[in-house]
Amino acid sequence: MPDRVCETQTPTVKVRMEEDGKSRAQSGFFMDQIEKWLKRTLELAEQGRGFTSPNPVVGAVIADGDKLIAEGFHSAFGAPHAEVMALNQAGAAARAAALYVNLEPCCYFGKTPPCVDAIIKAGISEVYVGTIDRNPRVNGAGIKILENAGLKVRVGILEDQARRINRGFLTYIEKQRPWITLKLALSVDGFIADATGKSRWITGAEARKFVLAQRRKHDAIMVGMGTVFKDDPALLPEECTGFIPYRIVLDEDFNMPPRMKLVSDEFRKRTVIVTNCGEKPEKLRQFQNSDVQIIRSSKDEFGWLDLSEVFLKLAKFGITSVYCEGGSQLAGSLISQRLVDELQIFIAPKILGEGLRAFSGFLQSLDQAIRLEWEKVEQLGGDVLLQGRLT
Amino acid sequence: MPDRVCETQTPTVKVRMEEDGKSRAQSGFFMDQIEKWLKRTLELAEQGRGFTSPNPVVGAVIADGDKLIAEGFHSAFGAPHAEVMALNQAGAAARAAALYVNLEPCCYFGKTPPCVDAIIKAGISEVYVGTIDRNPRVNGAGIKILENAGLKVRVGILEDQARRINRGFLTYIEKQRPWITLKLALSVDGFIADATGKSRWITGAEARKFVLAQRRKHDAIMVGMGTVFKDDPALLPEECTGFIPYRIVLDEDFNMPPRMKLVSDEFRKRTVIVTNCGEKPEKLRQFQNSDVQIIRSSKDEFGWLDLSEVFLKLAKFGITSVYCEGGSQLAGSLISQRLVDELQIFIAPKILGEGLRAFSGFLQSLDQAIRLEWEKVEQLGGDVLLQGRLT
Repeated sequence: MPDRVCETQTPTVKVRMEEDGKSRAQSGFFMDQIEKWLKRTLELAEQGRGFTSPNPVVGAVIADGDKLIAEGFHSAFGAPHAEVMALNQAGAAARAAALYVNLEPCCYFGKTPPCVDAIIKAGISEVYVGTIDRNPRVNGAGIKILENAGLKVRVGILEDQARRINRGFLTYIEKQRPWITLKLALSVDGFIADATGKSRWITGAEARKFVLAQRRKHDAIMVGMGTVFKDDPALLPEECTGFIPYRIVLDEDFNMPPRMKLVSDEFRKRTVIVTNCGEKPEKLRQFQNSDVQIIRSSKDEFGWLDLSEVFLKLAKFGITSVYCEGGSQLAGSLISQRLVDELQIFIAPKILGEGLRAFSGFLQSLDQAIRLEWEKVEQLGGDVLLQGRLT
Repeated sequence: MPDRVCETQTPTVKVRMEEDGKSRAQSGFFMDQIEKWLKRTLELAEQGRGFTSPNPVVGAVIADGDKLIAEGFHSAFGAPHAEVMALNQAGAAARAAALYVNLEPCCYFGKTPPCVDAIIKAGISEVYVGTIDRNPRVNGAGIKILENAGLKVRVGILEDQARRINRGFLTYIEKQRPWITLKLALSVDGFIADATGKSRWITGAEARKFVLAQRRKHDAIMVGMGTVFKDDPALLPEECTGFIPYRIVLDEDFNMPPRMKLVSDEFRKRTVIVTNCGEKPEKLRQFQNSDVQIIRSSKDEFGWLDLSEVFLKLAKFGITSVYCEGGSQLAGSLISQRLVDELQIFIAPKILGEGLRAFSGFLQSLDQAIRLEWEKVEQLGGDVLLQGRLT
């Protein structure tokens, strides 16, 4: 059981989001300094990306005004927390210094003792926190304990960014499922592949580079079996060192041929097949000595895998964010079931005339349009990236 | 025959695009000043928008350094040219002053005498020109005459903007057809209307405002009969005072019902029906006492109007730019025949699932994708506007 995650508990502690006492943070100069250190915690946190799930990524800085004393980050699930790593490095120099951390320090025994105890014991005088840890076992209690011990605490600095880097963890806590990003590369006329089914060439080099980078920002990548049959993708990030995201295939009838890259390459232990037919004896034999992981899930009334159950099971498996790369069946199902937190749509500078439509497999015909909100629009080489969310 | 436009003549004069003598323009300070006055000529030119076609829009400024002496613009086809209007206003103050103009001054007798003669006679000492007039009767000759008379001439200042505001005129000269902008409002999945054919709601208020403003920037707006039957649009700009663009309907079989807004509203004399069936006696009777204009054009082998001929005829009619607003038949034909100079694609924040596809009527199936280049991408309210061109 992940140490930051537990089942249910009503939040009982209210947190002062703004501390307007005689804190250093009152002047613009000190505010700039605080934001500088908070930004640094975000960078540090990213160093644990991919290894901490379902725990959050966390970075911590100990500083005396403008002077850096120590840094730390949560490097892997089960490893020391960022705050403790920084405190250990600082030693006696932590006394009367300020601690900066992107997520509220924990206040319970999990795999490690509570960080708040270590912070108080070290003599830290001020704590600056990016965002609350919505885990019901924390959820403001960590901050309350620090305040009760006489420390100045300020919460909500660069909060959007602090939430964003832990959106997987926060979605996991708040919705009991992973954060879901749906990526689609479309022609202007809304096709994801030409009439012969070819799609690899739809977008250009910069868009592909962006996608490779996105893979590393998620715990897992997901495709349907249609995409596996059509493209035989490896679904790896640009560099295959360090963290390799899980590669999840929705294969309701367990049709995966053993020759496919996902189940035969050197990273096959990072492949997860989600199927309703775990009983197929010949298939089980095929994968018996492979490291491929198999998760069973139910079918819905239409014969597709029940996506809500799939994501619940993936969350239990420790996956807090999923990058869905298609094809049209998966895209249609995710959209119509509103299982999309972020939409990344690449519009390629092409008109195909005919082709494979972007969305299919809507569980029922849409009686109303699904509405979106564009959050960011940019040119990426020859393509345009529209980032948005369902409203 | 428009006075700036004639059939063919090979350019014989080479123009020095950069004058690097002892001109005032050598220092950055003077360059800023020159650009300031050139920008003003572009603003002045716009005041003639809609009334000068097939002539270009032209603005002129006479100034002594930073001091404005006189301004002028070409206000209507047949009216005095911008340069002459400014010279008349300046009188004796034009002597030794500088003239700024967005387009090369003319050097032949058309509806008015050559501007270059008036410029030389007035004693202007320096002339700053946005861009060459590619009309074969000018095309550098105007500049050469000024230089031969001892004036300092500099060409190519803010040239992109100077070309852009006269892109209709320049396309007319270079391709013997109007500049063609194709506008499409699409859902993310590439539909221009929902399954019931409704499209009016696809984009939001800001996109619609943009479209209304674009109408005024073109000599004419074009739709197919499908759009007329479906929407009965009036195709007017936001304010119906001053210039009203022509409203062109492609109606190959002359099916226009007399009740439609385009042929019954107060602006019906600005409506042009292009048809292959000008002989239908009952139709001709219906429109006999109306002010609606009718142009006959041939059909192509597929039974649609031959678009190349249509645009040639519209150019002869004096139309130098056309804003094509759909529907899918017109969009498909324009794209497949590569008759699009600028593409304006609005992506609405909606997924429809089913609907009317953006492009139909491709004359043949596309054996290769049609490639585009995005030139500008921006959010307009809830929608995204992609501006681009065919490559």
